[in-house]
Amino acid sequence: MAGEIAEQPHALQATLDALLPRRDELAELARGRHRLVFIARGSSDNAAIYARYLAEVHAGIGAALAAPSIATLYNAKVDLSDTIAIAVSQSGSTQEIVDTLSWSAACGAKTVAVTNVADSPLAESADLALVTQAGREYAVPATKSYTTQVAALAVLVDALAPQPGTLDADFARVAEQAEAMLKADPDVLAEMVKVLAATDEVLTSGRGLAFGTTLEVALKLEETCLRPVRGLSYADLKHGPIAIVDHELATVLVAGPNGPTLPGLTELAGTVHDKGSPVLGLGGDAPFRAACDLALPGPDLPEKLAPLALPIPGQMLVELLARQLGLDPDAPRGLNKVTQTES
Amino acid sequence: MAGEIAEQPHALQATLDALLPRRDELAELARGRHRLVFIARGSSDNAAIYARYLAEVHAGIGAALAAPSIATLYNAKVDLSDTIAIAVSQSGSTQEIVDTLSWSAACGAKTVAVTNVADSPLAESADLALVTQAGREYAVPATKSYTTQVAALAVLVDALAPQPGTLDADFARVAEQAEAMLKADPDVLAEMVKVLAATDEVLTSGRGLAFGTTLEVALKLEETCLRPVRGLSYADLKHGPIAIVDHELATVLVAGPNGPTLPGLTELAGTVHDKGSPVLGLGGDAPFRAACDLALPGPDLPEKLAPLALPIPGQMLVELLARQLGLDPDAPRGLNKVTQTES
Repeated sequence: MAGEIAEQPHALQATLDALLPRRDELAELARGRHRLVFIARGSSDNAAIYARYLAEVHAGIGAALAAPSIATLYNAKVDLSDTIAIAVSQSGSTQEIVDTLSWSAACGAKTVAVTNVADSPLAESADLALVTQAGREYAVPATKSYTTQVAALAVLVDALAPQPGTLDADFARVAEQAEAMLKADPDVLAEMVKVLAATDEVLTSGRGLAFGTTLEVALKLEETCLRPVRGLSYADLKHGPIAIVDHELATVLVAGPNGPTLPGLTELAGTVHDKGSPVLGLGGDAPFRAACDLALPGPDLPEKLAPLALPIPGQMLVELLARQLGLDPDAPRGLNKVTQTES
Repeated sequence: MAGEIAEQPHALQATLDALLPRRDELAELARGRHRLVFIARGSSDNAAIYARYLAEVHAGIGAALAAPSIATLYNAKVDLSDTIAIAVSQSGSTQEIVDTLSWSAACGAKTVAVTNVADSPLAESADLALVTQAGREYAVPATKSYTTQVAALAVLVDALAPQPGTLDADFARVAEQAEAMLKADPDVLAEMVKVLAATDEVLTSGRGLAFGTTLEVALKLEETCLRPVRGLSYADLKHGPIAIVDHELATVLVAGPNGPTLPGLTELAGTVHDKGSPVLGLGGDAPFRAACDLALPGPDLPEKLAPLALPIPGQMLVELLARQLGLDPDAPRGLNKVTQTES
C-alpha cells in the first residue's frame, strides 16, 4: 500500500495525459443529454460522489447516484433517454456494476466506463471507456486507482462544462501537488496515529466538493484499520449524530483549500473540540487548521481539483495506523479486491 | 414519544384521506417532466430515500436526492426544467430546505412541499403543498411525522405512475396494519432491548424499498439512545464495512415482506450471525425471521407500502431502549426539533 501511495504523482499524470485529449469525444457522446447518473460501489462510489458535486457546480448538469438494486433486483423500467450513465469500477469486473450499466443502456442512456482495466467487461460494454493509468494495484485498499478515478471523472465533467478547458492550468499542476502531499510532516502524522490508535470510534466529516474525499478517508480507515468509522456531511451531522460526539470519539475533518463550505467546517472543528473530541484536520486553510488539534495541509489546487490529491495524506495516515495496530494494510481481514454483491 | 407512536394509525389514515384525492393535481403539475429531485435532511431524508426507490420501481421515473449545498453554498446554476423538486420537512421551517426549494424553482423546477405545518414557509413557497395530518409532534424524535411523510410520498409517487390507483386497496389497509404493529410481542421487544443495551455499537442493514426504514431505525437509535449506529445497504456493507462485524456489534436487519432484496438479506442474517454478532430482524418473511436471533414481523402490506408501518416496531424498540438506558426518549441530549444547518 505504501508503494502504491507513492506512485500516485506518476499515475495521475499518466491518466490526465491519456484522458484530457478525449474531451471532444465525451462532449459528442453527451450532445442533447442533460443528466448524469453514476453507478459505483465502495471507493469508486466515493469518487462518483465527488463527480456528482463537480457536475452540478462546474458544469451545471444535474447528477445522481444510481441505486443498482433498481436495475439488478427490481429490474425497473426507467426512462433514461436524456441521461449519460457513468459506471466506475477499478477492475471493471464487478458483475453488479456491469449489469447496471447494461440496464442503463437498455433504458436509453448513453454509457461511459471509468475503469483501470482496458479489456474488462465494463470497458468493453460501454459506448466510451475512460481507462485510468494506475497500473496494476496489488494492495486490497484502493489508493492510486481511487485518485486516478477522481482524475478521470474531473476530465469527464470538464468535457461537459459550457466552457471546457478552464481548469487546464490546474490539471497541469496535479502531479507536482500529489508529490508535495507525499512529504507530509512525519511528526504530525505520528501524532495523528497516536490519537486514532487510542480511540475505538472515529467520525469523519466534510461537505461539498471534498465530501467524496471525506467518505473515502472514512472507508479506508474502517476497512484497513478494522474500527468503525463514519463519514457524514457536517449538515447531516447536525441532524442527529452530533448527539454522540464526546471525548471517546476522534473526529477527522476533511476540507478543500477554500470555497463556501470552509467557514462551516472551521466552526464545526471548534464545536467538536469543545465537546471533548480530538479533531484531526486534512486540508483547509490556516484558520481551519488552527481550529483543529492536529492538521496537515492539502494540495495547492483549487477546490474543484483538490480531491485529486487531498486523499493522499489520509491514505498515509491509514497505512501508518494499520501498522501501528499490528494489522497488514495490504490485505485487510475479510476483503477481496473484486467485490461481488450477490453471491 | 410513546404516545405519539400510538397515534400513528389515526395520523396515517387522516393523511391518506387528505392526500389521495389530490393525485390529479399532482399529475397535472408533473405533466411533461421526467425527473424527481428530493430535498430533505435527517428523518425527512430517510422518507425521501424510500420515495426515490418507489419512484423508479413503481412509476419508472428517475429520481435523485439533492445536495443542498449545491444551492445554498455553491449557488450553482443547474438546468431543472425537466424536474419536479420535492422538499420534505416536518416543520417546513428549516431555512436550508426552504432555500433549496426556492433555488430549484429558479432553476426551472416545479415544486412540491411535504410538511406537517400548513402555514409554514415551505408550504407557502411551493407550487403545491402536501400537508401531513400528524398533528403537533412534541417529542424531538420524529415518529408520526415520519410515517405520515412516507405516506404522503407514496401518494405523490402513485400519482405520477403510468396507472395511478393500483395500490388503493393496500392504502386502505395501512391504518389497520399500523395498529397491528403496536401489538408487537412485548417479550421479544424486551429481549431485543437487552441485546442492544449490552452493546456499544449497532449496525443496521437493509436494501431497496425498505432501505429508508433501515436508515430511519438507525437514526432514531442513535439520536435517542446516544450510541453510534450505522445504516448501510447490504451491498455497501459487503464493500468494506463487513470487516468490522464481530460479537461486539449488534446488527439490526430491516426487510419488506417479500420482494427481490429478501433472499440476500436472509443470507446476510446467517453471515452476520456466523461472525458472532447478535442479529435482530424487523419485518421480512418466516425464513428471514428464522435466520435472525430475534425477530418481529412487519405489516401485512406489499413491499411498496410496507415502509408506511414497518418503522413502528423500530420506534417502539428505540423508546424502550432509551428508558432502559435511563435516557429521556422525548428530549435527547443536544438536539432541537428544528435543525438549522447554518448558524
